[in-house]
Amino acid sequence: MYERISELIAEKKFAVLREELKEMRAVDVAEAFDELDKKNTIILFRLLSKDDAAGIFSYLSTQQRKNIVNAIHETQLNEIIDELYFDDMIDFLEEMPANFVKRVLASSTEEERKLINQFLKYPDTSAGSLMTIEYVDLKKEMTVKEALEHIKKTGVDKETIYTCYVLDDKRKLEGIVSLRKLVLFDADLLIAEVMNDDYIAANTLDDQEEIASLFKKYDLLTLPIVDKEGRLVGIITIDDIIDVIDQETTEDFQKMAAMEPSEEEYLHSRAFSLARRRIPWLLLLMVSATFTEGIIGRFEDVLQAVAILAASIPMLMDTAGNAGSQSSTLIIRGMALGEIELNDYLRVFWSELKVSIIVGITLGFLNFVRMMIFSPADLSVGITVSATLVLTIMMAKVVGGILPIAAKKMKLDPAIMAGPMITTIVDALALMVYFTIATTILGL
Amino acid sequence: MYERISELIAEKKFAVLREELKEMRAVDVAEAFDELDKKNTIILFRLLSKDDAAGIFSYLSTQQRKNIVNAIHETQLNEIIDELYFDDMIDFLEEMPANFVKRVLASSTEEERKLINQFLKYPDTSAGSLMTIEYVDLKKEMTVKEALEHIKKTGVDKETIYTCYVLDDKRKLEGIVSLRKLVLFDADLLIAEVMNDDYIAANTLDDQEEIASLFKKYDLLTLPIVDKEGRLVGIITIDDIIDVIDQETTEDFQKMAAMEPSEEEYLHSRAFSLARRRIPWLLLLMVSATFTEGIIGRFEDVLQAVAILAASIPMLMDTAGNAGSQSSTLIIRGMALGEIELNDYLRVFWSELKVSIIVGITLGFLNFVRMMIFSPADLSVGITVSATLVLTIMMAKVVGGILPIAAKKMKLDPAIMAGPMITTIVDALALMVYFTIATTILGL
Repeated sequence: MYERISELIAEKKFAVLREELKEMRAVDVAEAFDELDKKNTIILFRLLSKDDAAGIFSYLSTQQRKNIVNAIHETQLNEIIDELYFDDMIDFLEEMPANFVKRVLASSTEEERKLINQFLKYPDTSAGSLMTIEYVDLKKEMTVKEALEHIKKTGVDKETIYTCYVLDDKRKLEGIVSLRKLVLFDADLLIAEVMNDDYIAANTLDDQEEIASLFKKYDLLTLPIVDKEGRLVGIITIDDIIDVIDQETTEDFQKMAAMEPSEEEYLHSRAFSLARRRIPWLLLLMVSATFTEGIIGRFEDVLQAVAILAASIPMLMDTAGNAGSQSSTLIIRGMALGEIELNDYLRVFWSELKVSIIVGITLGFLNFVRMMIFSPADLSVGITVSATLVLTIMMAKVVGGILPIAAKKMKLDPAIMAGPMITTIVDALALMVYFTIATTILGL
Repeated sequence: MYERISELIAEKKFAVLREELKEMRAVDVAEAFDELDKKNTIILFRLLSKDDAAGIFSYLSTQQRKNIVNAIHETQLNEIIDELYFDDMIDFLEEMPANFVKRVLASSTEEERKLINQFLKYPDTSAGSLMTIEYVDLKKEMTVKEALEHIKKTGVDKETIYTCYVLDDKRKLEGIVSLRKLVLFDADLLIAEVMNDDYIAANTLDDQEEIASLFKKYDLLTLPIVDKEGRLVGIITIDDIIDVIDQETTEDFQKMAAMEPSEEEYLHSRAFSLARRRIPWLLLLMVSATFTEGIIGRFEDVLQAVAILAASIPMLMDTAGNAGSQSSTLIIRGMALGEIELNDYLRVFWSELKVSIIVGITLGFLNFVRMMIFSPADLSVGITVSATLVLTIMMAKVVGGILPIAAKKMKLDPAIMAGPMITTIVDALALMVYFTIATTILGL
């Protein structure tokens, strides 16, 4: 798509391009925008038909939108804003400077202004921030036939017509009815008879993660959002939920790798912004790791006496850290998917204990064989290292399994108890076990 | 839900329970099944109406389905199988023993048998394994009105009616048309005029991850799957894609924590099965880590001379590992979401280099201050440790950023180049840098 577009721009075949753009999909054109420089971005945007412009605009990056906003005329911009779905418009306003938002509000009607201000106030990760207001509303007293006629008249501007909302005079949500039913059912039936009044709904301030869980559990395509009085304020559609799922997972990945989460795309982030999100946790873990200096310091004479003991420290630490990461990752993911709950801690404990015995003994035995093959003279060192391996793997897995649950119990995000944190904790434990066993077996 | 159900079972109020079950949602009833023992599972299942049984059956776990299959009569089972959507039936048959599948095939018609056998053959992660065959097919020559009548007649058994498929006499897919258009457009228009013949489609053997990307990119609700001749063989619906997204992410998490991926839920896995998936990578990494033994062995005299150097090894290793994990996680996730491509490797390299200089100098400086406060006498050790920190953080971040891309270039899964692998590589590098700097600065 991009090759063709940039070719036509380079050859200044604008009339041809204008025609071809009409046939292209909005996302594909938006992707081409990503590759163009600022000047060509604006050339391309001016070639779009009025109808296509809004659709493509909603897929563009913040930076490109800003370029376009600065280049096009205010009336043209207002046309685009009018064409955007309400949720896309709110997203757009949120990323623009305050005085721009003021200008848009100034050119809106009293009612629009109230609504925009209300939507701008919803927290970033709440149901409110995902809603749109372009839904079909029906009345209980309508027949199926009247409802279909109503949809035909009003549906063209709606984000979806596949689920319709039955409201009373005060906009209280009385039931929902799918277009499927309206098409399949008898035209003379009343909406009151075909609607579902045992529907799933959520509130404006509910967290987007909970909203995503509802969509997954009940296989929803849309979800109505009501206020405290039960009045319908908006609907959330599945396409926005897929973005939420990706976003929440990315957040988990970032937290699990000991970073402050951010929604910025990597390639669009500045080095300072990336560094700022990485330093705090890295620093905290570094300071925690200095605890291990004290342990080694205490056993300095042991290391002096049997210098070969130092050689196995990195291997023991790495293996312990990896064993703990495996367990904590499984538990964190299980909790994120709702498969593991807080009160499963005993089951997790037993499971990790059993697994860690199998894994620990297997690795300990193989390590012993390895050490006996390469340095058969150091039998007691071989025993020390292998015994430490068994014990640290067991500790690492139990700690890795339990700490994410403990974090959740303390209302922290389980994802912080992932690899880096577990490794730091488990490394200190591994060293203590190592020197304790060494002093016992080697009689130091 | 479960409390109420188990209460009614305990009190043997089966008639009441039967009535209340009719009002409950299938997923919620299926969740209650999870908590019941085998005997009560079967009691509860027998209380379900014929219509509800199939719906709930498709949400149950493999083990519960097997319990039920063994307890109920074959005719009742056949009724359930008939009621299941085709994709759910195939999933069910895939988890049952071969002779059970044979019995089902024996009681099917010739045509059904062919279709079932064809579907059972699709690889587990292919588009084919996600398809269902309950779609609405239309003809180009129909009017919108005739199409709506056709949907009314045949739509009740279809998994979705929101997208309809226009087929020629050989079942070749000529276009798709949404119910939205059929409802909003003029009843006299021909399907040929309203259908979209520039639709997105995929093939039976396409990987489910690519299919999920198509759904995300084009905000699809359904996707037609065609064979090599362009004939429609099935459709995929968005609810199955959400499961695929979760499943692929879980797989990434598991690989990134150095485990063989598995679809088993943690709490339903046996210890041996969990251990088997963890040992291979742990062992490989353990053996790789023994490389560090050689490094320390080579510099044993350095450690003997300045014993205090050993104390900082764990902190240096942990920090290097964490710094590398941060970078590799960001890049792996960026590649999974399609934000970072193979040919971005230079941009990633520069970005990580810049970030690592900022992070490295910050942490190195703070560590130097810390060491000077706690042991001001060891100036040269402080310089050695801090300089090592700066350099290893830089190496860790560049290696962590580039290796996932290199893995993909070599057709490996980038996810294996995550925390554990990067840590093992980076730890060896850190030790080499440490001893090199130490021998230079301390003049050993």
